[in-house]
Amino acid sequence: MVIAGIPTDHLQVSHYRMSEAAVPEPAEGQVLVRTLLISMDPIRRSGITGKPGGLQIGDVMPGSGLAQIVASRAAGFSEGQVVECFPGWQDYAVQKPDDLSGFERLGPLTHHLSVYGVSGLTGYFGMAECGLPKAGETVLVSAAGGAVGHIAGQVAKLRGARVVGIVSTQEKAAWLTGTLRYDAAIDRRAGPLNEQLKQTCPEGIDLYFDNVAGEVLETVMTRMKNRGRIVCCGWAAQYDTQTPDDAIKGVAYQMVYKRLRMEGFVVNDYYDRKQQARSELAAWVKSGAMKVAVDCLDGLERAPEAFVGLFHGDNRGKRMVKVADEI
Amino acid sequence: MVIAGIPTDHLQVSHYRMSEAAVPEPAEGQVLVRTLLISMDPIRRSGITGKPGGLQIGDVMPGSGLAQIVASRAAGFSEGQVVECFPGWQDYAVQKPDDLSGFERLGPLTHHLSVYGVSGLTGYFGMAECGLPKAGETVLVSAAGGAVGHIAGQVAKLRGARVVGIVSTQEKAAWLTGTLRYDAAIDRRAGPLNEQLKQTCPEGIDLYFDNVAGEVLETVMTRMKNRGRIVCCGWAAQYDTQTPDDAIKGVAYQMVYKRLRMEGFVVNDYYDRKQQARSELAAWVKSGAMKVAVDCLDGLERAPEAFVGLFHGDNRGKRMVKVADEI
Repeated sequence: MVIAGIPTDHLQVSHYRMSEAAVPEPAEGQVLVRTLLISMDPIRRSGITGKPGGLQIGDVMPGSGLAQIVASRAAGFSEGQVVECFPGWQDYAVQKPDDLSGFERLGPLTHHLSVYGVSGLTGYFGMAECGLPKAGETVLVSAAGGAVGHIAGQVAKLRGARVVGIVSTQEKAAWLTGTLRYDAAIDRRAGPLNEQLKQTCPEGIDLYFDNVAGEVLETVMTRMKNRGRIVCCGWAAQYDTQTPDDAIKGVAYQMVYKRLRMEGFVVNDYYDRKQQARSELAAWVKSGAMKVAVDCLDGLERAPEAFVGLFHGDNRGKRMVKVADEI
Repeated sequence: MVIAGIPTDHLQVSHYRMSEAAVPEPAEGQVLVRTLLISMDPIRRSGITGKPGGLQIGDVMPGSGLAQIVASRAAGFSEGQVVECFPGWQDYAVQKPDDLSGFERLGPLTHHLSVYGVSGLTGYFGMAECGLPKAGETVLVSAAGGAVGHIAGQVAKLRGARVVGIVSTQEKAAWLTGTLRYDAAIDRRAGPLNEQLKQTCPEGIDLYFDNVAGEVLETVMTRMKNRGRIVCCGWAAQYDTQTPDDAIKGVAYQMVYKRLRMEGFVVNDYYDRKQQARSELAAWVKSGAMKVAVDCLDGLERAPEAFVGLFHGDNRGKRMVKVADEI
């Protein structure tokens, strides 16, 4: 699947087209993989600006995922092995050993792109280690039904916090409080966010896990408790545009008057403890304490639709595309 | 000195006028004080908006300061004692014991409004305890020649950091690097801040002590090092206007990519350790390791000029007005 056009504002399915090519041959020291699952990551939108260094028309859309080795000319990797890699939106890809990693199977493959993958680990470490929710605290999560948010919120809940999520539809709000056992949910299209925060967090917010930035962050800052903490994890509100407008007012005023602490977080910094996190997540998943949303569309041809939908809030949990079944 | 008008934009001397009244009589449980020094605090500008609950025309301009008791009808306070209190911009004021506090004399009275007063303690605790500069780090201070900034910068220097200050005139910049021994100074009117930051902090900033907020904060965030810290202490850029415009862009982006930590700071939270801070400051002052700028204008009639000048960067260190000499 290649880039067919550069969006002037919102990304659309028509900015992609399918392209056929011969299956490549791995050179000495390389492996050929068959793509199984492609991860749909909102941050990849940032490469589609037409700027030098970014994606150009005709380029294969990049993406990480899981793939199965079909031919190996590299030591340490054998045919049939399933690996984490960066195949892009295509059926087959040649990869170098440095870009591959094996992993211990903890459940269905889809779990390895969601709860045990980058987004799950982001939700886990961002909440458990950076946010440090305490029992009884009010924790707010934005994009709370998303890949990172739905894990982060459940981690806070399992740490004993009262958890409130912000989503963009009534249906997702019901899913948060029903299936995911959030204490309350806000549909931000249902009315002014400030009023909804007053109702759901009447005593203010101890910890805000921010996935969206922009005006949601600006409004939430006004409802923080004294000494509240904000974990900055992403800026989803700004991904799907060529003209980001993320200016927010009152930052210093709120920070000072409420003695807030704000911290930026990147999951890679915690990767030395990946296995420990996966073990704790796996125990929760197996006991049913943590629900994992599977949002998997079938077929490479649906990748553009799956990806564009992310920016309309269509996904529930981690969105991915299945390209082929494991053999 | 009373309010004569409400500014529609910038505060001017003409928004004040002198008013005469009889010296008040203290009731039982009260004391009468003679004002000695009035502290010029930029934050008082926020009360002059004409809004309900704020100052109205004819009101005495409020302000903290040092005063000498001339008549006491309250237990524990005696005539002649010099106290910290809240006399306002007037020669005499009646005060309740709860609003007075005695203090141990560590130097000239002006030092008790500056280095040993609120602004000095703000610079001390904000830098030493909230910012926690380490030897060899690059520390940036905005409003670096101001009441808080000139103390904060010197504290960082005494902790072994490399200190860079942002000021608004070439003259103040020379004062920072000369008298105050800053390693470098930026005159923000001399050219684009971003370029000046690249020159003075070529490897980025470890710790930013922010007294101004607004576009200075926005620009500094882009020059922070990974894992840099920002102490939010004030928003001087927004004080002197009825229409604050402090929106800043890229907050979440910078926070995440650089794993920044930003923390709001209010000195009151550290008041249980006031004496400890004053002891350390006094040792530095006595050894000459810390310079204290004295910016004291003579005469109550000069208070409007002294105060308005704060918003034009006229002050060096803590600005105050001497109303009377101690007897």
